[in-house]
Amino acid sequence: MEPINLGITADFHVHLRDGSMCELITPTVRQGGVAIAYVMPNLVPPITTKKQVEEYHRKLDILSSKTTFLMSLYLCKELTPELIDECKDLIHGIKCYPAGVTTNSKYGVDPNDFSSFYPIFEAMERNNLVLNIHGEKPGSDNDDINVINAEPRFLPALKKLHQDFPNLKIILEHCTTAESINLIRELNKDGKGTIAATITAHHLYLIIDNWAGNPINFCKPVAKFQNDRKALIEAATNGEPWFFFGSDSAPHPIHAKQQHVGVCAGVYTQNNAISYVAEIFDKQGKLENLKKFVSENGIKFYGLTKELEKHKQAVWLIKRDNKVPAVIGNGSIEVVPFKANDTLKYTIEWR
Amino acid sequence: MEPINLGITADFHVHLRDGSMCELITPTVRQGGVAIAYVMPNLVPPITTKKQVEEYHRKLDILSSKTTFLMSLYLCKELTPELIDECKDLIHGIKCYPAGVTTNSKYGVDPNDFSSFYPIFEAMERNNLVLNIHGEKPGSDNDDINVINAEPRFLPALKKLHQDFPNLKIILEHCTTAESINLIRELNKDGKGTIAATITAHHLYLIIDNWAGNPINFCKPVAKFQNDRKALIEAATNGEPWFFFGSDSAPHPIHAKQQHVGVCAGVYTQNNAISYVAEIFDKQGKLENLKKFVSENGIKFYGLTKELEKHKQAVWLIKRDNKVPAVIGNGSIEVVPFKANDTLKYTIEWR
Repeated sequence: MEPINLGITADFHVHLRDGSMCELITPTVRQGGVAIAYVMPNLVPPITTKKQVEEYHRKLDILSSKTTFLMSLYLCKELTPELIDECKDLIHGIKCYPAGVTTNSKYGVDPNDFSSFYPIFEAMERNNLVLNIHGEKPGSDNDDINVINAEPRFLPALKKLHQDFPNLKIILEHCTTAESINLIRELNKDGKGTIAATITAHHLYLIIDNWAGNPINFCKPVAKFQNDRKALIEAATNGEPWFFFGSDSAPHPIHAKQQHVGVCAGVYTQNNAISYVAEIFDKQGKLENLKKFVSENGIKFYGLTKELEKHKQAVWLIKRDNKVPAVIGNGSIEVVPFKANDTLKYTIEWR
Repeated sequence: MEPINLGITADFHVHLRDGSMCELITPTVRQGGVAIAYVMPNLVPPITTKKQVEEYHRKLDILSSKTTFLMSLYLCKELTPELIDECKDLIHGIKCYPAGVTTNSKYGVDPNDFSSFYPIFEAMERNNLVLNIHGEKPGSDNDDINVINAEPRFLPALKKLHQDFPNLKIILEHCTTAESINLIRELNKDGKGTIAATITAHHLYLIIDNWAGNPINFCKPVAKFQNDRKALIEAATNGEPWFFFGSDSAPHPIHAKQQHVGVCAGVYTQNNAISYVAEIFDKQGKLENLKKFVSENGIKFYGLTKELEKHKQAVWLIKRDNKVPAVIGNGSIEVVPFKANDTLKYTIEWR
């Protein structure tokens, strides 16, 4: 197979953490074939000020100067419309975490009560910022919300948000269910092109059986069933503009995955991000649409133009055996990547 | 509360393993308030000969002489009707594992092809032996079987077996779904009293969210959803004769639970078996039916009479705080019990 030029690739959902994990992981964005990375703000404490955004961006830039890092704020009560206006040139969006549903989401919001954030959303709309939503309804002891239905149960809130803010760009992040795929398609019938969903690499591979008993594959939202996986693969591979790549690569030290209680949620895919995805497209006979998924669709949705300029090299997809390491790291901090020890069919080169 | 006399209690599904684990676990049957234990045959290699049954029984007897151990064989191609006739006084039943669905089930059977075992089932029927079924349909890469639907998808095979052998006593072991509860009720409308289900302690507590991220609660069949849990609690607590206790207590060394891949399936409940169950009955306001669930129903279904004679003491349920240890064992082998460190409301005494 001839190498395929994927252009300026983008991963619209990455977790780069801080401290030594950040130092280990940040360079792997480029190693995995990603030029532009949209960075999640769920540090401890979360990123909620202009100063934090600036400092985090500076830090990432030093760690990997050839990568473009798009920054975000963490939606919470501390944000103000004034802050949004002030940060509009530093960030590309704001991430909304329903409280308690995933790693470092305890500062998040109650999705039954978005209305208190409407002034923020108005400020975002006028500044052309994207609202990134972790779409799961938090459960309590008194309801029937569980890890399987939490995403579908969130969808009415998503629909209402889009209706109330038809011009606000909203992304349902790392969507995992056929219901979500269908809703994104349905809402896009309005022709506005303001609602989209990201899809991870690992959700193109996994179902519930793969994480039951294998904490390394446990993430939030959890991987669901075969019909969901099929819907995700179809959505990713057939080129529709409202579906694009966000790896949700979420590294945890190996010991945080080797727990009998309280395993951290997250699958680390960054160091082979494009290769994991390419293999699925290949299997579907849809390699011709890979560039749309990992580059064009998301770049267009976010409206990126000046961010492309700095990139002198494109990512090329090469058909060549590519063994996933058992672990990445340096002794003091080690992360087990997705499909560790497996041999992928593709690798990437920067040209 | 006055102590409650639970009589001669029975746990119709226990895993006592072999080697040092067997030495550690076997005495905890009695500590947990169980007089009679029906012992699973899934050792490595599985118990498929008369000699193995005799030796294992002898070993268990030495480890806990006051406990009555009911023995079983492992259904596989090596069994013959002659062997069944020969073992009829040594065993009370035969355990059927669909191949590949749980711990040490690789020697098991294909539930799409029970017909080759019909001569065995005939021998069991004439010898009044019980067929204990792990009721999950094994999945493959080409179907949509998963850990959630594997039990419901098995039910047609169970129904057919009961139709083909209406006088063979069959137990759907450790059932986990509302569908199974409903089917057992439906099949019992024939009035024969030959089909029943056991229910574990942990499935009265757990749903999917409790094992997602907590490998200590991961078992097969996996705990399902709130409506399933409710159906199990209702079935256990309302006294119907075809539902009774089988803990499926399945100890694994702690390191086998602290893995990032390949976590062993099984929840260990033996050392507080009756106390876990009692608390659920209390919460439901159904303590008056506890004796049916943990003693009478199963003893009647199995037709135990002479097995009761050796027991001079009954189990009494006492309302007294009972802290579950963080771990049981001795350094060389350690097992984390269900609800480790929690304080249960009940304990038991032998009187």
